[in-house]
Amino acid sequence: MARVNENFLKLQSGFLFPEIARRVEAYTQEHAGAVADKPIIKMGLGDVTQPLPAACVEAMHKAVDEQASADSFHGYAQHVGYDWLREAIAEHDFRSRGCDIAFDEVFISDGAKSDCANILDLLASGGVNRMAITDPAYPVYVDTNVIAGNTGAGLEGGGYEGLLYLAMTPDNGFDPPKPTEPVDVVYLCYPNNPTGAAIGKEALQAWVDWARERDVLLFFDAAYEAFITDPAVPHSVFECDGAAECAIEMRSYSKSAAFTGTRCGYCVIPKALTAKTAADDRVQLNPLWLRRQRTKFNSVCYIVQRAAEALYSDAGKAQVRERAAYYLENARLLGAAIRAAGLSVHGGENAPYLWVGTPDGMDSWGFFDHLLREAHVVVTPGAGMGPAGEGFVRVSAFPSREDVERVVERVGPLL
Amino acid sequence: MARVNENFLKLQSGFLFPEIARRVEAYTQEHAGAVADKPIIKMGLGDVTQPLPAACVEAMHKAVDEQASADSFHGYAQHVGYDWLREAIAEHDFRSRGCDIAFDEVFISDGAKSDCANILDLLASGGVNRMAITDPAYPVYVDTNVIAGNTGAGLEGGGYEGLLYLAMTPDNGFDPPKPTEPVDVVYLCYPNNPTGAAIGKEALQAWVDWARERDVLLFFDAAYEAFITDPAVPHSVFECDGAAECAIEMRSYSKSAAFTGTRCGYCVIPKALTAKTAADDRVQLNPLWLRRQRTKFNSVCYIVQRAAEALYSDAGKAQVRERAAYYLENARLLGAAIRAAGLSVHGGENAPYLWVGTPDGMDSWGFFDHLLREAHVVVTPGAGMGPAGEGFVRVSAFPSREDVERVVERVGPLL
Repeated sequence: MARVNENFLKLQSGFLFPEIARRVEAYTQEHAGAVADKPIIKMGLGDVTQPLPAACVEAMHKAVDEQASADSFHGYAQHVGYDWLREAIAEHDFRSRGCDIAFDEVFISDGAKSDCANILDLLASGGVNRMAITDPAYPVYVDTNVIAGNTGAGLEGGGYEGLLYLAMTPDNGFDPPKPTEPVDVVYLCYPNNPTGAAIGKEALQAWVDWARERDVLLFFDAAYEAFITDPAVPHSVFECDGAAECAIEMRSYSKSAAFTGTRCGYCVIPKALTAKTAADDRVQLNPLWLRRQRTKFNSVCYIVQRAAEALYSDAGKAQVRERAAYYLENARLLGAAIRAAGLSVHGGENAPYLWVGTPDGMDSWGFFDHLLREAHVVVTPGAGMGPAGEGFVRVSAFPSREDVERVVERVGPLL
Repeated sequence: MARVNENFLKLQSGFLFPEIARRVEAYTQEHAGAVADKPIIKMGLGDVTQPLPAACVEAMHKAVDEQASADSFHGYAQHVGYDWLREAIAEHDFRSRGCDIAFDEVFISDGAKSDCANILDLLASGGVNRMAITDPAYPVYVDTNVIAGNTGAGLEGGGYEGLLYLAMTPDNGFDPPKPTEPVDVVYLCYPNNPTGAAIGKEALQAWVDWARERDVLLFFDAAYEAFITDPAVPHSVFECDGAAECAIEMRSYSKSAAFTGTRCGYCVIPKALTAKTAADDRVQLNPLWLRRQRTKFNSVCYIVQRAAEALYSDAGKAQVRERAAYYLENARLLGAAIRAAGLSVHGGENAPYLWVGTPDGMDSWGFFDHLLREAHVVVTPGAGMGPAGEGFVRVSAFPSREDVERVVERVGPLL
């Protein structure tokens, strides 16, 4: 009989966001009348509300028409994305910022979640590699390591044996100290989900230097790069000297271009990047990822790749900037209201998330429940994103302006 | 330093289809003039040439417009696909044929390749499970098992240590004898890629009965179901009694609805299906897959899911039937010409592939090279799809009618 992957059984709960949805649904069932009078506003999921940029809409209609005729029909794409999209990315997202990235170091995918998850296929599993993960973090980093057998059992209070958690706190400016014990891989995410923190060029260069000295692989999640406003904040890890020898970067169009329901992102794996075999030989990861994607993936919808390409037109770039400005203004309004109510607030300036300390005596899920009951507002409990998230909630700036204004009204008097 | 997944280094060559493309490209470079006079016709890749069905085009334009406005915008989908699509599939593809499949046993994906590859995440890796794979087969089955560490080294003459190959031959009617040694998982694909063979209801029931008796898990790839013309051929493994306790089925819209560049498929994992733990407990695979997809995948583009839904309208169904009939007529024309030239031909009646014996004294790659050089026609060398594929080539019926007629003209005199 087939043996199951028992690592799944270590997972401590459902994936965080379905768990939030379940609690909201249960509350709604029980209080249907109250909810009808004062609808629930969801700021718990990082989903966008502004529609697709007009440049994408135009490109998609055109591409649909191409697919409607045998003369212009596109079947299987190149497995890792069309070269015209890879080249546009290399040019506009990297070379224009001084990062020496070639088109064939860019791999198109259906989103940063897939890349953050699948990248583990390239590495030995079962705990051979010692993984360090910033805490709190996007749950995908931890859960995929659990599934791959890189952890032990779940621990009381959250977290798993065998993972090294790097606590991001207000005290360390959300840039945790470098690990002192041996590690093989470090996950970093800047601008950070969930704390909304950004990292300066020097601090990121320090990570790269540290990783190169110790031969550590960095997974750098830059899904929120479009929200950077501070010119001192790097947009890519590849702005740092030597990063091509130690880092993989993941990017997404989900938040910048409203692609949460359209699905496209990419990762950058430099040709200079290697990992080692048991015999201590070095193996390039770029061709391994190409082989992995050719074997397990069939690229992204042609129509969607055309939409992504349109984001690099002048119109597309302007529409992405408009969206970022809209959500950052949301963050400013929310931050001011929460701060005025006396709570501590972090983030929101280079990222679409606010990281809010819970009121005295309330834990993350307690404050989540309180806001749900009293204000009909859904936030993300920080504890759901890692042990160091306890005592915080994440507030998303992605709702519509109207909903943000309602939240400001509801939450102010409550706190 | 991070340790690489050394299983990748066991892979014997590039993924088959890029290897074919490489050879065609090299020939074209060397013989540019001859190729200009007589363009190369590609029947090597299973890619379609007919455009998207009109029902899909209409649904996609409408969905693009929905995504263009905040009022009708769709962000993150349900992780395993929208319920309306899952329900349409359960009803039209299964319950209408007497298979008792519920919507929450259907999981939408970006294609059968992804599902066939990712399904291994649910099982213990590193060789704990003994895998049996029909031979020849879609290379994804074998290569993903290599990457997961379920095999030993590559063998002379193709194949890998540790996998059990079930040879499909004309002598056994492309329905191999059941394994006599212990196995945990068997991959089956009917209508078959690459041999074009179909399986009757009784023969498939015999596999299900055998699997249930021995507690074996069946992976049933039904990507070519739309091409079945014989009423005695089952469209789903779930037409067999008891299959819900032993089988997972993969389906794709790639070939039936021209989705090779659009990307959508699904798998069916019945709630009755289990695998076991080391302690011999049984674990349901349906909720494990839900957890896997929520953690590692973010569903399929909304616009694409609407296109898939449109395939279940009366117009959509008719357009799928038209496409199947078109390609099957291609197969008939090709089969008649090749047979007239004196070669043995199998398949093509319930599948869009012909399985052609090579002329005396030529092996698969030899015949591939011969047809490329002499006729400028690209086929798939059978040996590239498994050891038992030696001595055959796969001819795809997916080119346009015009190209098929050209191939018939070119190949007849050559053989």
